[in-house]
Amino acid sequence: MSSQNSRPGEFELIERYFAPLAGPGGLGLLDDAGLLRPGRGYEVVVTADALVAGVHFFPDDPPAAIGWKALAVNLSDLAAKGAKPEGFVLTIALPRDWTENWLKDFATGLGKLAEQAGCPLIGGDTVSTTGPLTLSITAFGMVPAGRMVRRVGAKPGDVVLVSGTIGDGALGLKVHGPDKPGWVAALDDGERSVLTDRYLHPQPRTVLAEALQRHASAAMDISDGLVGDLTKLLTASGVGAEIDLDAVPLSAPARAALMAVPALAELAWTGGDDYEILCTASRGDYSALSAAAAEHSVPLTAIGRIVPEAGVVRYSGKGGTRSFERGSFSHF
Amino acid sequence: MSSQNSRPGEFELIERYFAPLAGPGGLGLLDDAGLLRPGRGYEVVVTADALVAGVHFFPDDPPAAIGWKALAVNLSDLAAKGAKPEGFVLTIALPRDWTENWLKDFATGLGKLAEQAGCPLIGGDTVSTTGPLTLSITAFGMVPAGRMVRRVGAKPGDVVLVSGTIGDGALGLKVHGPDKPGWVAALDDGERSVLTDRYLHPQPRTVLAEALQRHASAAMDISDGLVGDLTKLLTASGVGAEIDLDAVPLSAPARAALMAVPALAELAWTGGDDYEILCTASRGDYSALSAAAAEHSVPLTAIGRIVPEAGVVRYSGKGGTRSFERGSFSHF
Repeated sequence: MSSQNSRPGEFELIERYFAPLAGPGGLGLLDDAGLLRPGRGYEVVVTADALVAGVHFFPDDPPAAIGWKALAVNLSDLAAKGAKPEGFVLTIALPRDWTENWLKDFATGLGKLAEQAGCPLIGGDTVSTTGPLTLSITAFGMVPAGRMVRRVGAKPGDVVLVSGTIGDGALGLKVHGPDKPGWVAALDDGERSVLTDRYLHPQPRTVLAEALQRHASAAMDISDGLVGDLTKLLTASGVGAEIDLDAVPLSAPARAALMAVPALAELAWTGGDDYEILCTASRGDYSALSAAAAEHSVPLTAIGRIVPEAGVVRYSGKGGTRSFERGSFSHF
Repeated sequence: MSSQNSRPGEFELIERYFAPLAGPGGLGLLDDAGLLRPGRGYEVVVTADALVAGVHFFPDDPPAAIGWKALAVNLSDLAAKGAKPEGFVLTIALPRDWTENWLKDFATGLGKLAEQAGCPLIGGDTVSTTGPLTLSITAFGMVPAGRMVRRVGAKPGDVVLVSGTIGDGALGLKVHGPDKPGWVAALDDGERSVLTDRYLHPQPRTVLAEALQRHASAAMDISDGLVGDLTKLLTASGVGAEIDLDAVPLSAPARAALMAVPALAELAWTGGDDYEILCTASRGDYSALSAAAAEHSVPLTAIGRIVPEAGVVRYSGKGGTRSFERGSFSHF
């Protein structure tokens, strides 16, 4: 019997690897549809991300990390919208050479974050493809009616804030990828491992959701690079911003990389895969938001302020003022 | 300038082809998340289906038909669950050689059904792939709390019913596909065209949703073949059934095909792509359900009854009793 012939069929596969992710309260994936039960006065925030092997991750990345990240990028969106995770659906197109071990590890990584976030799998679809492994997750979160934090809403005078540190994901991709640039050798093992981990295992800022919902005037998660995503938020809100690039928070490993190659600052500011929160808040709400973030031990750093001129972003720092040619990661 | 270089980027593409599908009430795809607002006392039914070019449709199928069908298969699930369509998200992985014309026609077909069903696009993601075009749609419908029709719920004595006619999709696939069997020549142009259309443009039975929600004891849509899907429903409900194969409703073109090759009955009963409703109802509810279906001009045909023996299905017909080796379309 070939190993291919001994692979489980669709229903065994769901039973073995996906049903355990459904959580105790759900329908156990026994039906052909999932169910969301918003509490009275709540609305459902919906977000979707697709990931393709060879485009969004390396085909030989640890499967558990792929599973973790596929859900993490969606939970990051929900957090930015002020929503509490409630469940997700997964569609997965398996390539010809999939193995049961791969799928088992994938489900383990996915399930770990699903459990940590209290976000069960409520449905999905498993199909085959002649192409690379393709994942699509749609995730659901709850917000009090009318309280979803949007991109629209930033007002002149608002403070511009980011959570955590910026650039680790983009630098981590270089450290992790097959073509390592020279500067990677300038980092020590610990620094390399922190950056790689930030790329492979982004931590969605779910703990900030409630504070954002209460205090942010606008928010989005940073997935395509700070500079590009800021432009999207400003465009939606019809305002501009003044940003102090020196204030953009960097991790110790990122600072070590920039010490080796100062030009990497560009990558940190424009690269993707941060999965941090970019938000704005009025001066009055700023302190309440900061206090709530501190309570959850999440750094929240002011990097600038909103100005009235629509679409104008003035970046300044030690190097004087500057602009960015290429704002954002483009998907094709 | 090559035609590839002149293709729109992600944001132009959303603006040109997907934003018009968002409907007047939505956020216009301007945010990074969609929003569902269930009325008080309502729950959200969630269903997801992935479709891969070369697996679920022919790569050179009319793009408008691909768009239509991608949504139709999800709306069919919602109808079976008794849910009124409310919105959907689309993730699409575009192959290297995608063209703007393809995408335009795809969005037209998708939008036609979205408008007809009152089911706007509320979000999604557009990425690139080195493999075949891959679509994933997650669709949402509303039901009064606790009223989602499940696979669980069929009881001994219940009538087993199917909507419309069975087998047209599977026969239509043969008529439409590149390797046409001999019997296709025995059909006239009109018959061929009806079957092809049933394969390319399934009509989700959305009009039955409310009646199912009120009167069905269990339901699912038939996507993987009547015989296999019936087994799933019976297994979930822990019951068996007696089915009269002669009662299974066939369209005139399907009857013409079976006249040419009687063995095609097997394909009609076990082939997929019906997107009709399979449901059960108590004798008391049966007449109310039939009356509601008649009101919407949807044929609903009794094909058997539920028996207590779990997992046992007795098929009978002119040819005596029989069983099925291969119950259902397997996805890999």
